[in-house]
Parts: sequence; C-alpha cells; structure tokens
Amino acid sequence: MNIGIIGAGNVGGTLGARWARNGHTVAFGVRDPNSTGSRELLQKAGSGTLTNMADAAKSADVLLVSTPWAAARQVIESLGDLSGKIVIDVVNPLLPDLSGLILGTTTSAAEQVAQWASGARVVKAFNTIGFNIMADPSFGASRALLFYCGDDAAAKQTVKSLAAELGFDPQDAGPLRQARLLEPFALLWISLAYGQGYGRDFAFQLLRR
Amino acid sequence: MNIGIIGAGNVGGTLGARWARNGHTVAFGVRDPNSTGSRELLQKAGSGTLTNMADAAKSADVLLVSTPWAAARQVIESLGDLSGKIVIDVVNPLLPDLSGLILGTTTSAAEQVAQWASGARVVKAFNTIGFNIMADPSFGASRALLFYCGDDAAAKQTVKSLAAELGFDPQDAGPLRQARLLEPFALLWISLAYGQGYGRDFAFQLLRR
Repeated sequence: MNIGIIGAGNVGGTLGARWARNGHTVAFGVRDPNSTGSRELLQKAGSGTLTNMADAAKSADVLLVSTPWAAARQVIESLGDLSGKIVIDVVNPLLPDLSGLILGTTTSAAEQVAQWASGARVVKAFNTIGFNIMADPSFGASRALLFYCGDDAAAKQTVKSLAAELGFDPQDAGPLRQARLLEPFALLWISLAYGQGYGRDFAFQLLRR
Repeated sequence: MNIGIIGAGNVGGTLGARWARNGHTVAFGVRDPNSTGSRELLQKAGSGTLTNMADAAKSADVLLVSTPWAAARQVIESLGDLSGKIVIDVVNPLLPDLSGLILGTTTSAAEQVAQWASGARVVKAFNTIGFNIMADPSFGASRALLFYCGDDAAAKQTVKSLAAELGFDPQDAGPLRQARLLEPFALLWISLAYGQGYGRDFAFQLLRR
C-alpha cells in the first residue's frame, strides 16, 4: 500500500516506520527532508522516501495526518486534491497545556478535517493512545484496543487492517461523528498518562462475555 | 455504611440492592414508596427501606444520584442540606435520542451537580457502563474497569471501596473536571451497546506493563 505520512513527529514517525518495515511504500512528508531528524527517521524505517508534504500526499492511497491541531487546517488545505484518498486523522484538538479540548460535544476535529480534506474518505484512528503503544501494542498475551470511526466502510476496513497488522485489536466505533467521543477518550489517556501518575505504558482492552 | 439511593431505576436499583445484600443500610428514595415496582425493588434488595427522596438523603452518609439528567437539578435542590455528604453522581447529560451529550468540553454534569449539591463531596462514578455490568462486573477472571473522579480524596476512597466490593476494578481518573472526559466515555459505551451492535455485555479493562 502507498502510505503518506503528513507530520512525521513521534506518532507519524512511529506508525510510518512500522508500516515501512512491514513492506508498505511509505512517503514521509516533512517540512525539511534534509534535516538530521528526517534522515534518522528514514534510517529507523529502513525504507521509504523523504519528501515535502504535498508530494507525500500525491503518491499516497492512504494519508496519515498527525500534525498538531493548530497546524492541521493550513497543512491539509495545502495538500492539493485528496479526492478518493483515505485520510487517517490522528489529530486531537488539545489545548496547549493539555487541560482540555478546544472543541467537542457538538463537533470534533475529525469532522473539521473532513471538511478541509474535500473528497477524501476520513477515518479517525490512532488518536487514543501514545506513540509508545503504537510502537508496541502488546501487553503480554493481550493486545491494546484501538477504536476507529468513519463514514466510508471500505476505508474503515483498510484502516482496520493497518491497525491489526501492527498488533492492535481494532474496533469499529461507528460513523465519523463518534470522534466526538473518541477525542475526549484520547485526552483521558493523555491526562492519566501525564497528569494522574499512570505513566505511558497502559492501554485499554475490550472485555466481552 | 448508610447509603441513600436517589432515583431507583435500573442503575440505582441494581447498585442499591447489591450494597444492601452486602450488609449496608440502604434507603431507596422513590417517588411512590407504595408502587409495585418499589416493593419489588425492596424484595430484590432483601433489606433496606423505601422512603421519599428527602428522607433517603437525610439518613445517608453516601448518596447515589441516578436520576435522568432532566430531573437532576430539581431533585438535588429538593434534598435539603447535603453538607459533608458524599454524593455519587451517576447522571449523564444525554440527549433524549442518545445521539449526543447536552453539555461537555468546557463543563460536565458532575460540575453542575456539585453546584446544586452545595457543600457535598461529589464523586462521579458508575456512569460509564450499563446496569447489567453493575449487576456483575466479572468477565471470566477479569474485572470491568470503573473510572471515578472527584475533588475530595477521602470521598473518592469511599467510592473506590464501594466499587471494589461489587467486583469492579476501580481507577482514579483525577479531579471532578475529568467528568468532562468520563461523560463522553459513558456515551461511547452506550452508543456501542445500543447503536453499533456490541450489545450490553462488554466493558473495558486496563492493561499495564
């Protein structure tokens, strides 16, 4: 699969490198392809290309958007025509001090992203746990739960596969507007990890009977 | 412990009956103590008293408020002086069709309840899973996770004990404002259970490593 990573920080870098190591063709869209950090990223991935964001988007069937919320609109609108592409929205609309969400309840970052990424099939995913869990979602014999939501069934199926191959237990949370619940769920993880002493090495599992 | 149940529907009825069977003194505050439903509730609990809401509140050290959101303010303000009491707020501010929350992001039902229950020590808890999980939080050898939050450490310790004795894995989510995250978490459970085909027999577990 041709995967573009828009915003190759901890999250985009970790996921892109793992997908590259799994054999996908990954283009890392970065601000400066010649920086030391960018070259280190490519080394970690073992394969893939470093390019600017618009070129990374152009070649991709699946685009992971993991910029900070403040940059998301400008970046997405600069990517050109995204019609038909699968956009995985990882962005959480966090206040800079992590004390709350900038928006929610009646809308979500994902719904905003879907407006900006005109024609794209947006799936919210990989937003509810830290990049250390993305690097390794296994807890002994258990796999970390990963919720995703979106309005396009085929796009969700692709994202589900991309999560399962990394070792997650991917679970469909419903239509894109469910991001109104998954974004607070993300801040719950963040606030427990950084504010309430849980540390970053925890995740959730689904129990059924 | 003297426990008052305000709003003895599925949630209050289930929790109150289980605490009564565990040996606590439970007063069920109901609109009509002489109704068939009320008498059935008392039979299920095996012990306890049926009374009006104000009397249930008066005798209680711990008060479980599990009315619908629309009734919460009027009911809480009618209970008289709640100074020093522990109020467990189970109320989720759900739209009647369950399509969203009436409030959130910058406030929560719990923070509103804390204003109405002047002087009480409010703990948000038992709001994130259905009453069937409250009846039995065990999934094989695993226990369902139960988050609670509040601003009074001693009150939280009491609620933690009351959850643990029912078989939950109670976890502290931090101060009361964390209800801004636990109320969307509740709607996530509800929407998956009723709208996304998960059914009601699921819960979450915390994974650590």
